[in-house]
Amino acid sequence: MARPDLDVLAAFAAELADAAGPIIREHFRTGLAVEAKADESPVTAADRAVERRLRDLIEERWPDHGIAGEEYGLKAPDAEYVWSLDPIDGTKAFITGRPTFGTLICLVERRAPLLGVVDCPILNERWIGGPERPTTLNGLPMARRPGRDLAQAILATTSPHMFKGWETTAFERLRAEVKLPVYGGDCHNYGLVALGTLDLVVEADLQDYDYLAPAAVIAGAGGLVTDWDGVPVTLGSTSRVLAARTPDLHAQALRWLQG
Amino acid sequence: MARPDLDVLAAFAAELADAAGPIIREHFRTGLAVEAKADESPVTAADRAVERRLRDLIEERWPDHGIAGEEYGLKAPDAEYVWSLDPIDGTKAFITGRPTFGTLICLVERRAPLLGVVDCPILNERWIGGPERPTTLNGLPMARRPGRDLAQAILATTSPHMFKGWETTAFERLRAEVKLPVYGGDCHNYGLVALGTLDLVVEADLQDYDYLAPAAVIAGAGGLVTDWDGVPVTLGSTSRVLAARTPDLHAQALRWLQG
Repeated sequence: MARPDLDVLAAFAAELADAAGPIIREHFRTGLAVEAKADESPVTAADRAVERRLRDLIEERWPDHGIAGEEYGLKAPDAEYVWSLDPIDGTKAFITGRPTFGTLICLVERRAPLLGVVDCPILNERWIGGPERPTTLNGLPMARRPGRDLAQAILATTSPHMFKGWETTAFERLRAEVKLPVYGGDCHNYGLVALGTLDLVVEADLQDYDYLAPAAVIAGAGGLVTDWDGVPVTLGSTSRVLAARTPDLHAQALRWLQG
Repeated sequence: MARPDLDVLAAFAAELADAAGPIIREHFRTGLAVEAKADESPVTAADRAVERRLRDLIEERWPDHGIAGEEYGLKAPDAEYVWSLDPIDGTKAFITGRPTFGTLICLVERRAPLLGVVDCPILNERWIGGPERPTTLNGLPMARRPGRDLAQAILATTSPHMFKGWETTAFERLRAEVKLPVYGGDCHNYGLVALGTLDLVVEADLQDYDYLAPAAVIAGAGGLVTDWDGVPVTLGSTSRVLAARTPDLHAQALRWLQG
């Protein structure tokens, strides 16, 4: 399959985010019937409505592409191009009334992130980019900020309870080396790494749709997202990620994470 | 001193927040020279510029009132009416590029919160209210949401590192009883308690300007903010707070916090 033009793909990815936002905003902070899934994560009607809409748009425009969505599963996951979808990443933030959740969309090419969207519809912040396409924030290029060493770095993780057993030990080892650990933030954290106001994100207990779009967006801003062994993330590759603003900082952080 | 009319005070408090917002937005996510204070908290030029402006406005309008500000200290702290000011609460969020910081303004009457403002200028969310004046969000009344019991509650704290020694033990005891603990969020958390999408906030290592405005805003929404002994917060009264959506939930949470 010939690779579609990246500009065309980026415009389409933006259309997907445009379609998701209004559905999400309509449900935000309203009385929602929260269902309990097997994994106990809160799932809302908005989550499902968004994914259904995104799948329809993808199937209409790219019938040969696969889809891997949080809510409605896999379609042709072995296709050369697969759209990874997390309609509402950060459902705990969503039900808490926090605006830091977002829609994550990533086109993977032979399982590797090619183009990603991190869209926070309440914050009105949208990052689009990938390894071959410089990441934009709301359509504009971002100023490159100078890199920071580990001792000056700000490290984010959504919740310390993501980590179990040895993961906690590894996280604490890294945390002791940074200037400032911060918590919460959800997928917005990854956008801030691309922006350059946040240096590192370390998380565990993730699904691939949680990190593929962030990996593309951060790659397009000169950063790096890998698993805790330093291997770049791909479709279904891991549950633990280390995201860094620069490859140099990534190497410094990885050393402490690995002990 | 006769008490000024509450409507007049609320309008003036809104003027203060109106004055703070543009200064803050102008500095947000720009390259800032971050100074290190004795307590190591990051302080920005915006922080100081905002407090200076608010103090000028207060001194012009209410020359007999005291002022207790984070950056420029005390003026007549024993006056019957004192304005407590935290120009940028959540400076760590601010330097991380997160929008959850805010300006906290509280008029205390004989040391007790009378009217508070929690203003998040990037999120465009402003809560104003107090024990004698129903809290509004962006000028509108908020729908009363049904209360939740502790086992169904969402509990927020900005960082687990706020707690030291026995405080950690107490926090963990309470955390084990709630449905969902969430982290980060800064002063926006207190607004969400007033809104009713978040049930509890427990924090330590605070100054009075961190909790007086939240206490007023939450009181005006039917909730309660006290220290960890259950005593309502006043000017300079504590460094540890428990904020709850309802007095009933507050009593449930306090029991576990106290062991």
